[in-house]
Amino acid sequence: MMKKIVAVLALVFVLAAVAYAQFSKPEDAIKYRKAQMTLIVHHFGSMGAVIKGNAAYDAADFASHAAAVEMLSSLQWDAFLSPGSDTGDTKMKAEAIKEPAKFLAAADAFETAIAELVAAADSGNLEKIKPKFGAVAQTCGGCHKPYRK
Amino acid sequence: MMKKIVAVLALVFVLAAVAYAQFSKPEDAIKYRKAQMTLIVHHFGSMGAVIKGNAAYDAADFASHAAAVEMLSSLQWDAFLSPGSDTGDTKMKAEAIKEPAKFLAAADAFETAIAELVAAADSGNLEKIKPKFGAVAQTCGGCHKPYRK
Repeated sequence: MMKKIVAVLALVFVLAAVAYAQFSKPEDAIKYRKAQMTLIVHHFGSMGAVIKGNAAYDAADFASHAAAVEMLSSLQWDAFLSPGSDTGDTKMKAEAIKEPAKFLAAADAFETAIAELVAAADSGNLEKIKPKFGAVAQTCGGCHKPYRK
Repeated sequence: MMKKIVAVLALVFVLAAVAYAQFSKPEDAIKYRKAQMTLIVHHFGSMGAVIKGNAAYDAADFASHAAAVEMLSSLQWDAFLSPGSDTGDTKMKAEAIKEPAKFLAAADAFETAIAELVAAADSGNLEKIKPKFGAVAQTCGGCHKPYRK
């Protein structure tokens, strides 16, 4: 258990160190993560329209949206941990920066769920896809609920 | 030659058909491509700082920025071909939408160049990286010069 905590802390330290190097200004971090979310929302929304029955299911198209969200989820989450980026043109609460391990665990749950959605999407079976899509949607709340104003 | 033209036209038709389905409003397409560019600029700029000698070279860090640009370059370029998206809050010229094959060829040149930069970045040799970085920078102009106001 202690080893695990040390490992997590070490990882957080590394990520935080990278974060400091990545964004010289809090505004840059805010701009970056907003752009990341804009792209995720577009691709996720395109899938959502199919799930809700508002758009026809095209297996290849759906799979490409799932793959895009997976790619985007692998981008640097440290934009959310950048010091000072909880103020200004943002809805993010300061808690995200204060609880990096908890924040990153929530982001990790999203990444895991989207990987499962990608696998389901590749099967081309909409009935298999639906629960996996729902599972991803739930992980969105893992960050949005505690860390968004 | 004729076959190639037919193939390109068929591809353009498919991409254009997808484009119509993807963005219900021109504003959505504009927002999408701006977000894509924001992320590319961030990662490209981080590499540029190293190339210019303004930041230390860290092989793993540099490679992750190159990989991020490659991922982002594989996202849908059809946001630039969306009908009506040459007006409003955008600097894009109408020519991009009018010349989809030419636009996509320029985007393709960028994708090819970034793949070579990723390979160089993975080598961990900054001297090998520099010319490949310069080559990518040149392909940026392939779209920005003809299609940006």
